[in-house]
Amino acid sequence: MRMYDIIEKKKNNQKLSKEEIEYWVMGYVNNKIPDYQVASLLMAICFNGLDDEELTNLTMTMASSGEQVDLSSINGKKVDKHSSGGVGDKTTLIVAPIAAACGCKVAKMSGRGLGYTGGTIDKLESIEGYNTAIPRDKFIKQVNDIGISLIGQSGNLTPADKKIYALRDVTATVESIPLIASSIMSKKIAAGSDYIVLDVKMGSGAFMKNLETAKELAQKMVNIGKLAKRNTMAVITNMDVPLGENIGNSLEVIESIDILNGKGPKDLLEVSIALATSMVMLCKNIPEEEAKNEVIKVINNGEAFNKLKEVVKAQSGNVSWIEDTSKFPKAKFKIGVKSPKTGYIKSMQTENIGKVACKLGAGRETKEDTIDYSAGIKILKKTSEFVTEGDIIAILYTNKEEKLDEATKDYLNALEFTNEEQDKPKLIYEIIS
Amino acid sequence: MRMYDIIEKKKNNQKLSKEEIEYWVMGYVNNKIPDYQVASLLMAICFNGLDDEELTNLTMTMASSGEQVDLSSINGKKVDKHSSGGVGDKTTLIVAPIAAACGCKVAKMSGRGLGYTGGTIDKLESIEGYNTAIPRDKFIKQVNDIGISLIGQSGNLTPADKKIYALRDVTATVESIPLIASSIMSKKIAAGSDYIVLDVKMGSGAFMKNLETAKELAQKMVNIGKLAKRNTMAVITNMDVPLGENIGNSLEVIESIDILNGKGPKDLLEVSIALATSMVMLCKNIPEEEAKNEVIKVINNGEAFNKLKEVVKAQSGNVSWIEDTSKFPKAKFKIGVKSPKTGYIKSMQTENIGKVACKLGAGRETKEDTIDYSAGIKILKKTSEFVTEGDIIAILYTNKEEKLDEATKDYLNALEFTNEEQDKPKLIYEIIS
Repeated sequence: MRMYDIIEKKKNNQKLSKEEIEYWVMGYVNNKIPDYQVASLLMAICFNGLDDEELTNLTMTMASSGEQVDLSSINGKKVDKHSSGGVGDKTTLIVAPIAAACGCKVAKMSGRGLGYTGGTIDKLESIEGYNTAIPRDKFIKQVNDIGISLIGQSGNLTPADKKIYALRDVTATVESIPLIASSIMSKKIAAGSDYIVLDVKMGSGAFMKNLETAKELAQKMVNIGKLAKRNTMAVITNMDVPLGENIGNSLEVIESIDILNGKGPKDLLEVSIALATSMVMLCKNIPEEEAKNEVIKVINNGEAFNKLKEVVKAQSGNVSWIEDTSKFPKAKFKIGVKSPKTGYIKSMQTENIGKVACKLGAGRETKEDTIDYSAGIKILKKTSEFVTEGDIIAILYTNKEEKLDEATKDYLNALEFTNEEQDKPKLIYEIIS
Repeated sequence: MRMYDIIEKKKNNQKLSKEEIEYWVMGYVNNKIPDYQVASLLMAICFNGLDDEELTNLTMTMASSGEQVDLSSINGKKVDKHSSGGVGDKTTLIVAPIAAACGCKVAKMSGRGLGYTGGTIDKLESIEGYNTAIPRDKFIKQVNDIGISLIGQSGNLTPADKKIYALRDVTATVESIPLIASSIMSKKIAAGSDYIVLDVKMGSGAFMKNLETAKELAQKMVNIGKLAKRNTMAVITNMDVPLGENIGNSLEVIESIDILNGKGPKDLLEVSIALATSMVMLCKNIPEEEAKNEVIKVINNGEAFNKLKEVVKAQSGNVSWIEDTSKFPKAKFKIGVKSPKTGYIKSMQTENIGKVACKLGAGRETKEDTIDYSAGIKILKKTSEFVTEGDIIAILYTNKEEKLDEATKDYLNALEFTNEEQDKPKLIYEIIS
């Protein structure tokens, strides 16, 4: 077998066999196939795609390229949840405790934020003492004991995906639905859960900019999940507008606590309920209505909030901060952003709003940057809402006072105003199973 | 400027600016841009192509990436000729002396054979003493003195093309009309002649398998030539059948001498006259008919043959071999290939016939292989000819007796027979100027 022939086949839009896919993926991981040949193949895949069989073979090869987490010693059904990434997306902090409170097992490994999107692990680490790096055996024991553990990715999971992703990142081959689908699903499959719920974000703050491509990605991932015997559902949700009202690590934790206490913004509540419902449906094999009722019940009776406290406690976090969110440190500087116009907010460039939060200190521009947990944005007015000139439409929080002017300007540049009344943006576009 | 953005632009089918093309080509030559990014871009070019302006900018950037041969001290018009490569293609040995005998200046650098196609330099070196590596000043003096010099490529010509071609060769990005066109034309432009005649081969022994792609390639190269102020003509010729009757280095030299002596196969004579006519038309700016008459005249009156002797002598070759071709060493072993059928030859897989010659010792499979100048094939029956079972249809020559059985089998496998009468293959498909 020669890599040259594999590249040529894909260039000529022919199907790659399982053996060919294993040959190039493992050859690359083992440094037997050079970067430039893989780069060339990846670009050919961007143009000619992969069919469902090729896609599953690629995903399974990447999934088994390193450690595969064995969750078999956890009693009960394990459910995982993944978001394709967005701004203000703190749903893991909400839906994981809800699902666990409903009796699902949530053994979840999350990532850190990079670029304009946040990461669950950074958010959790804004809670004093919270340990995101616990050993595999303790992780499993904790899930058996309390039904939930939320940790960072550890171990040598999917080295093939890591290496291929790093190459895609420098060769303009990130934007390819089959490559995105196989990357996400390989990680989820290696992470070991029985069921997977995918939150596919769509809009100006997401990778998928339109419904067509979001649906295609969602469907492909659901198909892979089925073929890999990991029943998978995908919820396509709005990311044309930041989710909820808060962006920034401790701000988002506080907002998540609000939701679990029956408060907090409606859009975030609605999306969280939809995702948690899918998790419970899959895990308990019950109809949507029944699952949704269970979800609402554990929010209303405080069991989900208690589950959050349990996981924080189990992972050495300071539970008093969860009980009294005023204990989270505040940013030194805050400023209100005033509306320059009277009218309706027509749109929010959500990716750019994510970048503003980043600039204030809430995110990393490079992997080496440190995060300011207290920095971020509280959004007071969102797309479709009416504002009067001079109204405060957002509050910026930071410890870097010198960033406030530029951040204010950037924030306003991300907004478009109109005199015409606007429909409320749709929150959930489609559920694919 | 970032290479990433350049790749993404081409991936999205956007036009690259002159500055962007110079950035990536020279960045690659200077080791500032890595292989894998260039590989990715080349694959995107295979899919989305280059428009005429991009193509010319790429060609000129590659042409000026190294030495540009200065032929200005040669009095008169300089004409170059290039073949896209085929089997039995010895026309340079014929048309260069013809054009020189007609008064054109031929300062030609040729290549060596690799794979199934031969190379002019190897053929010339089969003449005892012939020196293909003479210094630049002597090369120019010789062209001024006798109107012709035939040497190997020397100096640091088009390092960008060399580096890009080497990468294409391992990333399955060779087959791309704009990349082929710019590679050929960059070398021709750097080689310094005023006029360029291109022999674009088409058929089973050529890179271009059909007329559509051959015309596209020819037209693109002619366009580049015009934009680069190097008037260019392209002749699209048949390579569904080997050209002439001989394949192999000294066998082809002998056949070329035959043609210049008014003998030799008609197909080779016809293609040679067409190419030489184009060279003379361009160089002397005269109509086709007039140029053709001059060409035929210098063949008939022996001036072209004398010119060949002059160049061989000037480059230290043994002229007595040209005068008496029986002096070329013979292969130790020869075998007649017998027709297994009675009927017409329907087709010849010309690339495979080239590979048979290679196996007999006439070519290189890798750059390090040495060549047996006496090895090769004399073809007695070609496509459309009638044969009777048991007729000898070809003679194989080699010094490696052990190769004869396999070579005979391979040769016969390259032929297809039929009971139906066949039209003679067309020799010249189109002339593009």
